[in-house]
Amino acid sequence: MIVAVGVEYLGTRYCGWQKQLHSPSVQSCVEQALSKVANHPVTVFCAGRTDTGVHALGQVIHFETESKRPEKAWILGGNAHLPDDISINWARPMPDNFHARFSAQSRRYHYIILNRRPRPAVLTGQVTWIRDPLDEKAMHTAAQSLVGEQDFSSFQAASCQSPTAFRNIFHINVIRRNDFVLIDVTANAFLHHMVRNIAGTLIDVGRGIHSVDWVKQLLEKKDRTKASPTASPSGLYFLQANYSRQLNLPTPDSSFGPFD
Amino acid sequence: MIVAVGVEYLGTRYCGWQKQLHSPSVQSCVEQALSKVANHPVTVFCAGRTDTGVHALGQVIHFETESKRPEKAWILGGNAHLPDDISINWARPMPDNFHARFSAQSRRYHYIILNRRPRPAVLTGQVTWIRDPLDEKAMHTAAQSLVGEQDFSSFQAASCQSPTAFRNIFHINVIRRNDFVLIDVTANAFLHHMVRNIAGTLIDVGRGIHSVDWVKQLLEKKDRTKASPTASPSGLYFLQANYSRQLNLPTPDSSFGPFD
Repeated sequence: MIVAVGVEYLGTRYCGWQKQLHSPSVQSCVEQALSKVANHPVTVFCAGRTDTGVHALGQVIHFETESKRPEKAWILGGNAHLPDDISINWARPMPDNFHARFSAQSRRYHYIILNRRPRPAVLTGQVTWIRDPLDEKAMHTAAQSLVGEQDFSSFQAASCQSPTAFRNIFHINVIRRNDFVLIDVTANAFLHHMVRNIAGTLIDVGRGIHSVDWVKQLLEKKDRTKASPTASPSGLYFLQANYSRQLNLPTPDSSFGPFD
Repeated sequence: MIVAVGVEYLGTRYCGWQKQLHSPSVQSCVEQALSKVANHPVTVFCAGRTDTGVHALGQVIHFETESKRPEKAWILGGNAHLPDDISINWARPMPDNFHARFSAQSRRYHYIILNRRPRPAVLTGQVTWIRDPLDEKAMHTAAQSLVGEQDFSSFQAASCQSPTAFRNIFHINVIRRNDFVLIDVTANAFLHHMVRNIAGTLIDVGRGIHSVDWVKQLLEKKDRTKASPTASPSGLYFLQANYSRQLNLPTPDSSFGPFD
């Protein structure tokens, strides 16, 4: 039996999603918790691996189990064995051919910038702090040249193992609310560091260091060394993975923070 | 010379604002940082003392110093000596008779509830989690009987040292955004635990445990034992202190969290 689970986590204390030998990972915490509920060792697969310090509101994972449990048991039992900064938000039995990664049709990320002179205190590690005033309208305009199926070599980390740098960005929007600037981006999939490299580049446009046209020129250069530095992981949230509507999976109940 | 300073902090790691012998307090961190900038020991006074685990976006403090420093020096120098979860947002020279506590005309608090079944992970310690669905409209209606100058004995902690339980609530609003319910309250001043006792009581109204009329009845009883338990400090934010407009002090740049 295949079970899908929605996972939320604050990435600050973890070396990222993926299990590593000598560092605490979200994956190992989740596997340990679900193994206790299943009463057998469980291996989980996620929709989108996140790096050190990156957060998730709607990570989707799946695992195989022979243990029959009500949905509630996976949620409440799992949460009882998870630390405060990781939670299971829902659980669903799925068709046999479901795979959290390969069945996902798209992924959505939020990149949250706190754009003010004083440094943050309440949201340290949960936003990316940029002191210089950002022109979010220029960022939004510049970002539109990223939409569509394109070669994103200029935004691909050297460490990326993907055989192709083609990805399809369905939409990318940059909006401001008070001191916060949000980059909201959905693509079929992302290269390693792609969102953070895009964020770094758009931040430079927002600062006025580069023109709005520069992003389009960068894309054409297909050269990572020409783009801006990778932006901090602090502001990055894996918001949701989208699947066929027929699967009827829940989307995350709440985004980050509610109030103007 | 009197200097006023705006301070933001995440209260999670602290025993509250006030200095204590054997626990880390926000006050002692701020005094140590400002003493280094002033190059002499500094004692600070705040607009509103906050309890263990309570946060602040716009705490206002003042101190006396004989050191002449530009505003920037207090901000940048202070922040350099403060931990990640406390920051100085602004600094201003003030008239000699300014006192952060006694000159304040009102204080404003935000109480933030995450109202959903799954427990939080990203915002653990930064919101109060309530699983049961809350009727925020009932909460708002019930809260209106708290407005005005009244005897708040029913919402006063036993430990409160105030000689009178009369306070004046200028406005209190309860609104929902997605899974978040915000209680926004401004009063001339607050009794010890007053906001959290009001929050606990409104949460019980929101749950349907008590009727909308109950809050008015509670007020009239002037008996703390009749009201609901004190709500968690996690969701409580000291948002701002208000002073005479002539003083022209900054208000906090950003509330908690920006996006729906």
